[in-house]
Amino acid sequence: MATETYDLIIIGSGPGGYVTAIRAAQLGLKTAIVEKVHLGGICLNWGCIPTKALLRSAEIYRHMEHAGDYGLSAGKVGFDIGAVVKRSRGVAGQLSQGVNGLLKKNKVAIIWGEAKLVAPGKIAVTATANPPRGALGGGEYEARNIIVATGARPRVLPGLEPDGKKVWTYVDAMVPESFPKSLLVVGSGAIGAEFASFYRSLGSDVTLVEVLPQILPVEDEEIAAHVRKRFEKQGIKVRTGTKVTKLDRGGDLVKATLEADGKTEEIAVERVISAVGVVGNIEGLGLEALGVKTDRGIIVTDPFGKTSVPGIYAIGDVAGPPMLAHKAEHEGVICVEAIAGRTPHPMDKAKIPGCTYSHPQVASVGLTEKKAKEAGIEVRIGRFPFIGNGKAIALGEPDGLTKVIFDARTGQLLGAHLVGAEVTELIQGFVIAMNLETTEEELIHSVFPHPTLSETMHESVLSAYGRVIHI
Amino acid sequence: MATETYDLIIIGSGPGGYVTAIRAAQLGLKTAIVEKVHLGGICLNWGCIPTKALLRSAEIYRHMEHAGDYGLSAGKVGFDIGAVVKRSRGVAGQLSQGVNGLLKKNKVAIIWGEAKLVAPGKIAVTATANPPRGALGGGEYEARNIIVATGARPRVLPGLEPDGKKVWTYVDAMVPESFPKSLLVVGSGAIGAEFASFYRSLGSDVTLVEVLPQILPVEDEEIAAHVRKRFEKQGIKVRTGTKVTKLDRGGDLVKATLEADGKTEEIAVERVISAVGVVGNIEGLGLEALGVKTDRGIIVTDPFGKTSVPGIYAIGDVAGPPMLAHKAEHEGVICVEAIAGRTPHPMDKAKIPGCTYSHPQVASVGLTEKKAKEAGIEVRIGRFPFIGNGKAIALGEPDGLTKVIFDARTGQLLGAHLVGAEVTELIQGFVIAMNLETTEEELIHSVFPHPTLSETMHESVLSAYGRVIHI
Repeated sequence: MATETYDLIIIGSGPGGYVTAIRAAQLGLKTAIVEKVHLGGICLNWGCIPTKALLRSAEIYRHMEHAGDYGLSAGKVGFDIGAVVKRSRGVAGQLSQGVNGLLKKNKVAIIWGEAKLVAPGKIAVTATANPPRGALGGGEYEARNIIVATGARPRVLPGLEPDGKKVWTYVDAMVPESFPKSLLVVGSGAIGAEFASFYRSLGSDVTLVEVLPQILPVEDEEIAAHVRKRFEKQGIKVRTGTKVTKLDRGGDLVKATLEADGKTEEIAVERVISAVGVVGNIEGLGLEALGVKTDRGIIVTDPFGKTSVPGIYAIGDVAGPPMLAHKAEHEGVICVEAIAGRTPHPMDKAKIPGCTYSHPQVASVGLTEKKAKEAGIEVRIGRFPFIGNGKAIALGEPDGLTKVIFDARTGQLLGAHLVGAEVTELIQGFVIAMNLETTEEELIHSVFPHPTLSETMHESVLSAYGRVIHI
Repeated sequence: MATETYDLIIIGSGPGGYVTAIRAAQLGLKTAIVEKVHLGGICLNWGCIPTKALLRSAEIYRHMEHAGDYGLSAGKVGFDIGAVVKRSRGVAGQLSQGVNGLLKKNKVAIIWGEAKLVAPGKIAVTATANPPRGALGGGEYEARNIIVATGARPRVLPGLEPDGKKVWTYVDAMVPESFPKSLLVVGSGAIGAEFASFYRSLGSDVTLVEVLPQILPVEDEEIAAHVRKRFEKQGIKVRTGTKVTKLDRGGDLVKATLEADGKTEEIAVERVISAVGVVGNIEGLGLEALGVKTDRGIIVTDPFGKTSVPGIYAIGDVAGPPMLAHKAEHEGVICVEAIAGRTPHPMDKAKIPGCTYSHPQVASVGLTEKKAKEAGIEVRIGRFPFIGNGKAIALGEPDGLTKVIFDARTGQLLGAHLVGAEVTELIQGFVIAMNLETTEEELIHSVFPHPTLSETMHESVLSAYGRVIHI
């Protein structure tokens, strides 16, 4: 049935897949992309983007509640959860439409269905519902190169199986039919922290449970402790080192049994969000039959996305952590540039920032203090609190911390960790600095504009070298 | 009367002065600072900081007015100008107090009064009112080095003389006794643009007049045009290439005569803000008598702040444009490091960012497109509109533009110009990049977090090199 051979077929149209497809087209590769549900994948439709829309509503709601602090007044402040969700879905829909337009503009063929690798250079696609206009359907397709970019799905823990009604995945949590008065969030990574923040901001009674000793387990301890304190001040009940051992879904409320240090606590909540991580979608693709090497749920790749089988590549979540959209995009671009005969820089996973858009926001790149010390590096640490920053005070956002970690011997910037207003927009400066292998001297010499929150970046560097001004 | 000799006396405690004093103390210099009115100078008390507080109230007010767009509701939205101003004054007061604490912590002596240089190494101080506790008073003081950091004041144009009642300077505009229903803002630099934005956001009928052909005259033409369009959409009446030839203050309203292309227009407004620039405070300091060289109102300095007279230095506004707090601070730090025998990098005015906190925000660093072309440089321009950015759409802030200018021959980043949400916090990444003499390749290789507005920075660079993804 194969009628033409593509230079490249990409399986999965999440941010990794579609960005890679566009870059491939720019490089002159005849490219097709396979998608089974929605262009843009989880990120655009059920992840990064719609959650940011929800969190924006929560941010503005918080401001309205504190209008008086700013010399302003409102009558009765309220929200319509249906309207909040509708806006979020609208944003996701707009961007998914946008991906469709971008793929067409770049002449990337869209194949609508579920793909399986049946032989080297060949996939079989089973048609699925609701193809966009002009998309190709089921059948066999051939390509000199195939990139697997099928992303990830929520991890399911025994006893915590989502049911779409009382026990939610992030997908359910994004489209609540009604607003839950009480909520248990299991898992305090970025997804759990963001939903805890969203629902608490709108007034839900939220308990956030984490099995590890700190919330936001991948973040620097000090930053995570700061977030915990802020969450608790907002009324979120945080339980670390705690397991959810039982969910009784029988009654109107879900009865959850939490266990910590051998003691148990029982709470009753309207809804539970299971946010215990994600797992790569590597099943059902025919990878085993073709001998593509995997390791504990991850497709093994080199820094250019090559798998163990020539002509088959993997990028994004299926190629391992960090499971982040921008990592997937970058990996994909590197992969197709290598396919096209360019000489891209290899993937450097040490310089990929991570962001959490809770209130407060968190952003980081590079090594945490603990990781740096575990690696035996002698470090210099710099810290600057937002309370010493004029813009933070003018904004009414005086809580926050910017922390930097330098190699004491060389002055190289090893990591940066921020919590506070707009830090997700600040972190890029440190990313650029790390990519340029900056030392403290060059950062000290850079003039940060006044008054901005970004001055905390400068001051944190000054602090590491005994030169801090505003504290 | 002089009882002791300082290593350094700084005249003026604005951001240039007090930051320099702290750095000097860190370097072991016995330091005193002279201030006549308020610690922190204009910036903290009547400039950068209190305006940011006012603009924050305006921002939240705008959000409240559009609550419905976010699925939220408020009753009757309003503001109490007295409360808005009180918050702003509180923020300024808090920071001025903070400067007092920082100076004391760093053992910088505070001399309260008005200073005049009477001989090399000697100043005479005339006491002024309201000294902080522990401050020294009037008298003569000696120092091996003296830094003039006396800042700037509003420029006064004939016929436009502020009267504190109907015709305001920025100081008056920051503390209105009542909210003006109509307002003429003369001058569209950062100060004029910010006040036009603040008053318009709260409902004033604002006319913004600029004598030059574009508003925000130092900004890139394209960015300024974007701001103008947005201002006009908000209902600000923008008149460029226009002079205010007459103000008739006789009646209840001020009648202003505007002249453009030989045609005149008369408007009547409750209040006028004169924001036609600032001039350095170089008079009455005794500079002429000591032979300190000045040029058209600016004290002539080398890149380390040295004037023509040994032992006398100048930093900040009195040392010439750009008249910005962060430039003053940096200049001061360089100056005292050189005094202390360190070897700082010389001041590089080409890499100083500028920010305007109007709605929309504007931020830039380096050459504009026009300036680069005038310099005979073959340029590559990259642009990325916020409408192609997921975070911008999720925030409800789809209007904006990130523009970059590269040297086509070398790939060096020459300038960056941004307009839109939070761009004042984004610009630092480009500043860091310019300080490290980054080329496009290193910026392309940097992974910007998703979803953030900062991705527009990455895309603008990709755009300059024919690799843009999301448009």
